[in-house]
Amino acid sequence: MGEKGFFQNDYGEGAHPLVMRRLMETNMEHTCGYGLDEYSLRAQALIREKCACPRAQVHFLTGGTSANLIALSAFMRPYEAAIAAEGGHINVHETGAVEGSGHKVLVAASREGKVTAEGVYAVCALHTDEHMVRPRALYISQPTEIGTVYSLGELRALRVACDDCGLVLYADGARLGSALTSAGCDVTLPDMAALCDAFTIGGTKNGLLFGEAMVIANPALQADFRYMVKNRGGMLAKGRLCGVMFLAALEEDAYLDWARHANAMADVIRDGMARAGVEAYQTTKTNQVFAVLTRAQEERLARDFAFERWADLGDGRVAVRFVTSWATEPEDARRLAGALGAL
Amino acid sequence: MGEKGFFQNDYGEGAHPLVMRRLMETNMEHTCGYGLDEYSLRAQALIREKCACPRAQVHFLTGGTSANLIALSAFMRPYEAAIAAEGGHINVHETGAVEGSGHKVLVAASREGKVTAEGVYAVCALHTDEHMVRPRALYISQPTEIGTVYSLGELRALRVACDDCGLVLYADGARLGSALTSAGCDVTLPDMAALCDAFTIGGTKNGLLFGEAMVIANPALQADFRYMVKNRGGMLAKGRLCGVMFLAALEEDAYLDWARHANAMADVIRDGMARAGVEAYQTTKTNQVFAVLTRAQEERLARDFAFERWADLGDGRVAVRFVTSWATEPEDARRLAGALGAL
Amino acid sequence: MGEKGFFQNDYGEGAHPLVMRRLMETNMEHTCGYGLDEYSLRAQALIREKCACPRAQVHFLTGGTSANLIALSAFMRPYEAAIAAEGGHINVHETGAVEGSGHKVLVAASREGKVTAEGVYAVCALHTDEHMVRPRALYISQPTEIGTVYSLGELRALRVACDDCGLVLYADGARLGSALTSAGCDVTLPDMAALCDAFTIGGTKNGLLFGEAMVIANPALQADFRYMVKNRGGMLAKGRLCGVMFLAALEEDAYLDWARHANAMADVIRDGMARAGVEAYQTTKTNQVFAVLTRAQEERLARDFAFERWADLGDGRVAVRFVTSWATEPEDARRLAGALGAL
Amino acid sequence: MGEKGFFQNDYGEGAHPLVMRRLMETNMEHTCGYGLDEYSLRAQALIREKCACPRAQVHFLTGGTSANLIALSAFMRPYEAAIAAEGGHINVHETGAVEGSGHKVLVAASREGKVTAEGVYAVCALHTDEHMVRPRALYISQPTEIGTVYSLGELRALRVACDDCGLVLYADGARLGSALTSAGCDVTLPDMAALCDAFTIGGTKNGLLFGEAMVIANPALQADFRYMVKNRGGMLAKGRLCGVMFLAALEEDAYLDWARHANAMADVIRDGMARAGVEAYQTTKTNQVFAVLTRAQEERLARDFAFERWADLGDGRVAVRFVTSWATEPEDARRLAGALGAL
Repeated sequence: MGEKGFFQNDYGEGAHPLVMRRLMETNMEHTCGYGLDEYSLRAQALIREKCACPRAQVHFLTGGTSANLIALSAFMRPYEAAIAAEGGHINVHETGAVEGSGHKVLVAASREGKVTAEGVYAVCALHTDEHMVRPRALYISQPTEIGTVYSLGELRALRVACDDCGLVLYADGARLGSALTSAGCDVTLPDMAALCDAFTIGGTKNGLLFGEAMVIANPALQADFRYMVKNRGGMLAKGRLCGVMFLAALEEDAYLDWARHANAMADVIRDGMARAGVEAYQTTKTNQVFAVLTRAQEERLARDFAFERWADLGDGRVAVRFVTSWATEPEDARRLAGALGAL
Repeated sequence: MGEKGFFQNDYGEGAHPLVMRRLMETNMEHTCGYGLDEYSLRAQALIREKCACPRAQVHFLTGGTSANLIALSAFMRPYEAAIAAEGGHINVHETGAVEGSGHKVLVAASREGKVTAEGVYAVCALHTDEHMVRPRALYISQPTEIGTVYSLGELRALRVACDDCGLVLYADGARLGSALTSAGCDVTLPDMAALCDAFTIGGTKNGLLFGEAMVIANPALQADFRYMVKNRGGMLAKGRLCGVMFLAALEEDAYLDWARHANAMADVIRDGMARAGVEAYQTTKTNQVFAVLTRAQEERLARDFAFERWADLGDGRVAVRFVTSWATEPEDARRLAGALGAL
Repeated sequence: MGEKGFFQNDYGEGAHPLVMRRLMETNMEHTCGYGLDEYSLRAQALIREKCACPRAQVHFLTGGTSANLIALSAFMRPYEAAIAAEGGHINVHETGAVEGSGHKVLVAASREGKVTAEGVYAVCALHTDEHMVRPRALYISQPTEIGTVYSLGELRALRVACDDCGLVLYADGARLGSALTSAGCDVTLPDMAALCDAFTIGGTKNGLLFGEAMVIANPALQADFRYMVKNRGGMLAKGRLCGVMFLAALEEDAYLDWARHANAMADVIRDGMARAGVEAYQTTKTNQVFAVLTRAQEERLARDFAFERWADLGDGRVAVRFVTSWATEPEDARRLAGALGAL
Repeated sequence: MGEKGFFQNDYGEGAHPLVMRRLMETNMEHTCGYGLDEYSLRAQALIREKCACPRAQVHFLTGGTSANLIALSAFMRPYEAAIAAEGGHINVHETGAVEGSGHKVLVAASREGKVTAEGVYAVCALHTDEHMVRPRALYISQPTEIGTVYSLGELRALRVACDDCGLVLYADGARLGSALTSAGCDVTLPDMAALCDAFTIGGTKNGLLFGEAMVIANPALQADFRYMVKNRGGMLAKGRLCGVMFLAALEEDAYLDWARHANAMADVIRDGMARAGVEAYQTTKTNQVFAVLTRAQEERLARDFAFERWADLGDGRVAVRFVTSWATEPEDARRLAGALGAL
């Protein structure tokens, strides 16, 4: 009866209707290209304002891997390396894009997917001379690959570690909205801008057709960034599209509302799991929910719902991932919660 | 009164209304990501069909520079080089993206912006051993940077030269529609697929929000192309957008109609120039028109029309460029033609 | 009383006197450059013969890092990765040279510094699609970073794993002589050529001024290698120097004699440690000896001997490394053995 | 009747006997590795002194291509480009090594092989925004590829142009000795250090086995250079070899004597050509002599002398190159001069 409830990822639809409306309204206007148009400029100004960071530079990029490789290769010299968690997106899921731009990714110890300050110090202590790469950037994602969120205290500790070790702190915010609006999160956009040298505000996974806003808060890293973007193939001719879309998302804080919706839908699933006694593979408060199921349960659930197997636990059980988004229907979330209870 | 007539470029608007309609219609559908969805698969199949090239592989990329650097670095080993015309896009206007991926661009002789077969042979004859790069790809664009079109005979001659010299023939089709529908053009999509090892069908400059279709006709170049796309940051999460947009553009050959419209609007300007005795800086039949004006004439025209100065001729005169597109209003073209007559 | 006994490394002197003599004898001869001279050709032929591998291609390179980065970037496409042990030279001590040429280094499980076949399978099993790098080469060193030696059985198991996983097996033989002549080693040069796709015979650390012979046994990897060498800055104008030096080293198997001497000198130290009850940090049979000392013992020893601290064990003890070479004086080795007994 | 007179190149022998003697004398000494030994430090200090440039940093590299690619990639960011003459070594004869490290080489107008200041300004004037590479370094060689020498006035004009355009001035001194000691040359080592941001003193082509001294006069370019060297595979384990060899060459200014000898031998040939009325293909005062011959003359000469054909002039005539060095026998030079007279 109808389509399966969709919990496979948060980029399975087009854009939020508000975003599409703005694209339609502005469609036949003429503007100059490459992101130098009025919409882009206004969106950049708005982001600076929301970040309470007037000195920040803002650039719109097409996707996460592109954004990460452009930023990290802009911030580092050829022999410098980025530190990341073992499961960090740049370390596993970007087909070696950072290495492809010439830089090693070093792995630091992490807890619940979050790099620890101690882990950063330990990596830096090991890299002492010119026979080894020099650690130069700390890559984190907020939230992490497994949906956990750095607290303000944790971010501050990383900031201190970065200052101590001479590192740039760069945060991949592909799902930043979900982190900022998650239950108990004490981090705000201005905190991100104050503590990170640069970070992204992800549009692709929160209501836009595509687009990541790169916020470079540290003026020392801003020079010539547009050259890097073009050199790496990341500059869109119709750059205004990102301007229009980010304006739509940010003007009335719709961006945060959409993320809140996604988190609320995830809460429905989390509550269902709790009631049903389904074990969480990883505890989260963001829009990714991880459950431990038997293979039989997984198979049963897969008849009515689209989701991903995250890991084979090797004992007949599997970890699965349910992802919600601005587009998740409450009815679908309730159905899934119910189905989890009926396994 | 009102906005200036827009002849600055062919990427100043959003997408053709038909494309936007299809994006709206499919907006809330769930599909898998990264271009493996049904829309993308159907669009790829349709392109193979339009190209009469069942063996071709088709990939959707976000923009021209990204497409060029991904293709050329996929087709070449590190010590291999691409040959291009001096004014070729990869040689001048991509911020060293091809070199950024490790490959030299060699310049071959060209006539009216078109690389000549003799030019190709001459470059290859000079590169004879391992102390020099090995020429491995011939980059052309159809039409060229200055709007001229390779005839079928010229393409065949280049194909022979490439075969003789062991080169891959790669055509940048950012404005391919305009070339294929230009007056007197005897080249078709199947010709492109039969003669080129790979080429792009440009969407950005002909009706789409963004997107270039990479057609890899030569099976020997197809392996692992998606790895390269991801490694270089060119893979879009919502890959289906390109599928939906290219389907809209290609299903009823709207793509060619839009290009024909752009060319017809350019003809209106060309006719106006001819009647007014305004000298062409470069004779073209595609959607770029180049005129020689005095600075005073340029200034007068700039009050009512948006266009670009192409070159300062150093004698008080300038070359200017008028670009038309699917979106050019016939009234604007006629106004411009009239204004050229009244200079 | 005189210089300290030198056990700091195996590249602290110039070349073996025999090598210097040959350089002197040939010094004023005129030859063509870039390794195409008669000496180089003869040395290459001799290496093919010693390897019992007529199809092998041999190239002379200036140093280990250069050799590793040239070979691995010649053998892999941009999205492909090399697998190595955590402590592998390319992973730690080459300042990101492999990543600098665009390739990720993946870490596989190892035992006593040796990558295990299971480790290789495990890494390959994790890398399944185009969102991750594709493992393409297995990098090992023979002997390993910590002086252990792959047995013939272990190499064969790795060969099978490489065949199963589609990997190139590449062995860094910076200290190959020491491995091949170590007690109990059942691996020969012909075995290396039969089992590895490519490997180096290190000259720098066994009697030459500099120079590594790259043996490419697999014809599929041989094409255009000289282009890669030049492109990466690894081609020496006076290439004949390596030819002359490798001929000197290999003609009468002096290369193996020198390595045997180094191992014998290490045995003297190992025996001294055993008699004195000094704990080995890592058991080896090659020219690196690792001992666990207290800091006080380390300090006392450092008055008379030059050696390196390898690791701080964190409990007041340290691991130190003694390295022997063709140049180690038996008297110095005996003195060190004695001093270890007297700690 | 002995070997042919050798005029094929200036790297056809080993090292000057004085250099070999020093290598022999120091051969069995123990030093630390990687160029941090006393010989290297003393050689670096001596070079600073000879350059009258106490702030300079000096590094020893193995060869010219390696030196060029390491320096240029150390001095530029990824989207920045080096300007060179069309025939510049990096543009033609290094197999794309500079592009291989990610940077475009731009061609500037030159006169007699020498880049002109106007040429530099012209290239910079064309590169105005982020859609094009940014010119960042001017690469020259002293002497040039065709043996001509920049005068002090010409170097000063290039320095001004570089300052005006924000360029680093980098001089490849593979044959620097020959330039500095050529008739009428008004440039000294201190001039090179005062006017260039960095330059090399070539050892390979003037008496050493190998080795180029990289002098980085501009402190802003010095940071972390050893990291770059290692990252690009240019660091020699037995780094002291360069120290020992450069000390030998520079202590009593033997380096200049050897170059003077090479130039004097070239003068003998030039005089012979003048007397015989043989046309010079390019007038030079350094150790490369270019003559225009008929093919028959070339063939006749080739029976007794080894030299290179430089170009086929297409009218039955060819340009040939005679190269002299520290090792050229006066008798051979006289014989060649005589043979030119007897053609």
